[in-house]
Amino acid sequence: MTEPARDKKKPIYDVVGIGNAIVDVLAHVDDAFLKRHALTKGTMALVNADQARGIYAAMPPGTEASGGSVANSMAGIASLGGKGAYIGKVRNDQLGEVFAHDLRALGVEFRTAPATDGPATARCFVFVTPDAQRTMNTFLGACIHLGPEDVDGATVAAGKITYLEGYLWDSPRAIAAMRKAITIAHEAGRKVAFSLSDPFCVDRHRDEFRALVEDEIDILLANEAEICSLYQAPHFDRALQSVHARGDLVAALTRSAKGAVVAIGAEVHVIDAVPIPRVIDTTGAGDLFAAGFLFGYARGLDLGICGRLGAIAAGEVIGHFGARPETSLAALVREHLPELV
Amino acid sequence: MTEPARDKKKPIYDVVGIGNAIVDVLAHVDDAFLKRHALTKGTMALVNADQARGIYAAMPPGTEASGGSVANSMAGIASLGGKGAYIGKVRNDQLGEVFAHDLRALGVEFRTAPATDGPATARCFVFVTPDAQRTMNTFLGACIHLGPEDVDGATVAAGKITYLEGYLWDSPRAIAAMRKAITIAHEAGRKVAFSLSDPFCVDRHRDEFRALVEDEIDILLANEAEICSLYQAPHFDRALQSVHARGDLVAALTRSAKGAVVAIGAEVHVIDAVPIPRVIDTTGAGDLFAAGFLFGYARGLDLGICGRLGAIAAGEVIGHFGARPETSLAALVREHLPELV
Repeated sequence: MTEPARDKKKPIYDVVGIGNAIVDVLAHVDDAFLKRHALTKGTMALVNADQARGIYAAMPPGTEASGGSVANSMAGIASLGGKGAYIGKVRNDQLGEVFAHDLRALGVEFRTAPATDGPATARCFVFVTPDAQRTMNTFLGACIHLGPEDVDGATVAAGKITYLEGYLWDSPRAIAAMRKAITIAHEAGRKVAFSLSDPFCVDRHRDEFRALVEDEIDILLANEAEICSLYQAPHFDRALQSVHARGDLVAALTRSAKGAVVAIGAEVHVIDAVPIPRVIDTTGAGDLFAAGFLFGYARGLDLGICGRLGAIAAGEVIGHFGARPETSLAALVREHLPELV
Repeated sequence: MTEPARDKKKPIYDVVGIGNAIVDVLAHVDDAFLKRHALTKGTMALVNADQARGIYAAMPPGTEASGGSVANSMAGIASLGGKGAYIGKVRNDQLGEVFAHDLRALGVEFRTAPATDGPATARCFVFVTPDAQRTMNTFLGACIHLGPEDVDGATVAAGKITYLEGYLWDSPRAIAAMRKAITIAHEAGRKVAFSLSDPFCVDRHRDEFRALVEDEIDILLANEAEICSLYQAPHFDRALQSVHARGDLVAALTRSAKGAVVAIGAEVHVIDAVPIPRVIDTTGAGDLFAAGFLFGYARGLDLGICGRLGAIAAGEVIGHFGARPETSLAALVREHLPELV
């Protein structure tokens, strides 16, 4: 018996994520280290292979953990009980195996063929200062090979939301991959979500990002610095008014300890941060907010609840070292939002 | 002007460590996972390449961090302000680079040539259960290539103490390397320290280990299960009496929460564990006790103080996830033992 044609259109995934597949190398440093290496706290800078070797040689001992902004979000969605698929490029090397293992072990589908030559799996050097801020240097490595051929149409069409990261705009071939994914998702009647990723990344691609926000994406994720950079706004509220101008855009705007503002047109929710005993490392905060928010949205929950899910997930990840959840987010949600169960 | 011959004999290193150079893959699991994979809690089992692939595929997401028992001790000695050198074998692959970086970044000399073919850098899968116990599966990989040619005579002769791990006895070529190191150290008038490593390891090599303890080594490091296994003693005190029988042996015997017993002949010190708010992960506890103890011994400190240094270092490492110190042990010592400064 063949499946009825209608069922083929039923989405399989809450979220299909596409992003730079990166292994993080995390280390504790002091502010003097950032200064010595001319790093701007809280941001991400791209480095080439030589610069990557140099910064690695200069940095203290690290620990390695799978990262990548959208991949971290996918880990969060899995921890919330969501079903996800991920598209991203590693090389067929040890760190590529680590990256793939860590996603698949969570139940996230990850079938992008690894590159068999060219640069190694991407690494992101994450420097955590005593104030729990993270500053990053990324060597894109094999990520530059991600192209339209890696975007599986059936997978994208089967996701309620396709989630893209702004960082992808740093790889020319990835832009074509993104355009393909956006087209497929919309043709299948799905939503497209987009993260601005980083204020410097917005600087590099402001015009393209504005055009995307204006015309192509349905859900925008950004933090305060990023949304202000996008609209070159002097403060958060000014940027918020610019967002409002695109009436049907769903926007989830995070503001660190000040919480988040979640809006669609005139519907605005102000979400408080979830208080935690001690902030250890803010790496992954935005990624995990996105995880909670998109999971809720894919499940058709009220926008305010989506924001609270984001705050719960972000609160978990900043309470420990590393960018992916260490405890079950589904269990945390049961505790904080018992009315959802 | 040439250096006077006499100065050439002055030791350069507090400790020269020789061990299996391993990258740890740490993950949280429940007791059911250990049961399903027939793992004995608190011990280390060797796995071949196929078994390593199987257990990795079955395990949850992990984080990677440099490990290896003696290498962890060397990291601790560096953190205490000691000068160390390490001899161990990685492959010229990504995890081998990670291992080398993490030691060198601490100031530990590590010049062993990496293997250029054969198996990959060794991995140890470390399963941490909710009771903070760790259970390990080790794939020795490139470690099996460590041989006498890797033991640099000048380096060993320049260490006040040469520290060897029992785990090395699992690699036939490493045994010859150890014998060479013991001979060189003793001819240079240095001390040789030896860790029993693991009760199952003692089971595999009991006769050789007894002969070593009887005739060749000066300082023995062991935990309760290991020393009882060595002497096939029914309880700790019986094993302790067997240790006493070798009058000039320095023994540092750890007993988890019960602290440690440090002895040479009739001089016996009972050392309390350093109380910590919460035990998170016991991985590295023995390695860090050894670090504190050997650092103190190399500096000529009283045996009781050596034991307390061990307890301070072990207390740090069990308070967080991972087998190497996250905070400066030298600073902790200043806090706990201000009389030393």
